[in-house]
Amino acid sequence: MPAPDSPSSDHDVAGDAPLAPPPPIAPFLPAQRRSAAEEARTLVAGRRVGSLATLTVDGSPWASMVGYGVLNDGSPVLHVSTLAEHGRNLERDGRASLVVVGDADDDDPLDSPRVTLAGRVERPSGEAQRTARDAHVAAMPQAAVLDGFGDFSLWVLRVERVRWVGGYARMASAGAADYAAAEPDPVVGSAAGAVAHLNDDHAGALLLMARALSGYTDAAAARCLRVDRYGLDLWVDTPRGAAPARVAFAEPVTEADGLRAASVELTRRARAQT
Amino acid sequence: MPAPDSPSSDHDVAGDAPLAPPPPIAPFLPAQRRSAAEEARTLVAGRRVGSLATLTVDGSPWASMVGYGVLNDGSPVLHVSTLAEHGRNLERDGRASLVVVGDADDDDPLDSPRVTLAGRVERPSGEAQRTARDAHVAAMPQAAVLDGFGDFSLWVLRVERVRWVGGYARMASAGAADYAAAEPDPVVGSAAGAVAHLNDDHAGALLLMARALSGYTDAAAARCLRVDRYGLDLWVDTPRGAAPARVAFAEPVTEADGLRAASVELTRRARAQT
Repeated sequence: MPAPDSPSSDHDVAGDAPLAPPPPIAPFLPAQRRSAAEEARTLVAGRRVGSLATLTVDGSPWASMVGYGVLNDGSPVLHVSTLAEHGRNLERDGRASLVVVGDADDDDPLDSPRVTLAGRVERPSGEAQRTARDAHVAAMPQAAVLDGFGDFSLWVLRVERVRWVGGYARMASAGAADYAAAEPDPVVGSAAGAVAHLNDDHAGALLLMARALSGYTDAAAARCLRVDRYGLDLWVDTPRGAAPARVAFAEPVTEADGLRAASVELTRRARAQT
Repeated sequence: MPAPDSPSSDHDVAGDAPLAPPPPIAPFLPAQRRSAAEEARTLVAGRRVGSLATLTVDGSPWASMVGYGVLNDGSPVLHVSTLAEHGRNLERDGRASLVVVGDADDDDPLDSPRVTLAGRVERPSGEAQRTARDAHVAAMPQAAVLDGFGDFSLWVLRVERVRWVGGYARMASAGAADYAAAEPDPVVGSAAGAVAHLNDDHAGALLLMARALSGYTDAAAARCLRVDRYGLDLWVDTPRGAAPARVAFAEPVTEADGLRAASVELTRRARAQT
């Protein structure tokens, strides 16, 4: 095996990275995950500040912080001043890209989920102008006071490209139509609380789920890493090593407060199969 | 006065914004502040993740998250993969811009301090390559494992333009030479703790300082908002209304742990003038 600093080694040598986790040892049902479009919609809906890339007068890139609201089709709504460089840039050339960054599960910022949207801004008019204004003020109430300031403009970013990175080794692109049609995950607001509650009070149920439903029949402990509308991401300890695992809800959760019922059903199903 | 939504009103109408604060009523010494270049250097030195704007193959802007280290002259060092779009973009066109965003003092993200750097990336070689690599790994130890991966490149962003925004109505540009020569504020790591300590345990001293040194001889209460190497930003209550005020240390603080001695000197001076 070549040394990690050998020019021929490239990504086939993991360096200090952990070894591959042990595989499941029993059959298990495939567990749906959020699509890249759903991940992108969820992350964009969950924040209200991102970084905008625009083009300066000589076509160079310019990065700036920006607040945004979101239309029903996921289009970000910006409200920027021509007193700021990004505002002047958009007046001249509507091409723009917005990156939105979420919180990492751990302390490593490179493991943060993020999404890049790229396309072209349009100035909405008529009813679309009011809708865009309302979407922006819903996210940024403090911007309402700026309505009458002539140097501020509303812009809707028409998304043409979507690139989602969930963290290390979790990434995908999404088509513009898929992005527009996808739904933000309704449980995202209660997910962190649910993860803490499952780990604190239901470690036994998580272990049952891992053994009965994820193929890790030899699991000795299981911890919940993430929850989404489709199921739970687990981290499973086995005598063969630790591994990520996934268990799916019977049905995708459609309501913000639906995680409890879905988790109870999952526990009941795991018990029935144990 | 025209209504806030009148097209002619522009920024001369403050809408719901607060009225102008009352002015000081006694002479006071001018209090130095960090320059825009120092603000920018301090903010860039204090973070390790920003958003990068690069140019796609057709010259459109592309925004992405990036980790960075910092050279002694404030140049950011990036370490990006050509498997990622920003890496391919930099290979093709070295023009790039990095925005770094700090934490807002309050809950309003539009009040966050941020700085945009723009310029051109260069691939360092020889000794400069090692220095850049060390600067990047100092900020991003987790990147060390990627050293041997052929798709990763180190880039140094040679800064040509600097735009600092401290929050609402605090903003300025800085020249590239000033940015390179400026020093990050050494007290930034202990500033938040010092602010809390002053407000919790030394409210009386803050009030003395406000009355004796900031021109607000009628101050009834004073709270510390921010601390930097040059002095304290205060928020002062007076019978005429509340106002921001500033008191300066006798000498700029040069050491990370120098805030205590400087604050003690400030208190002593305020007492002597009361």
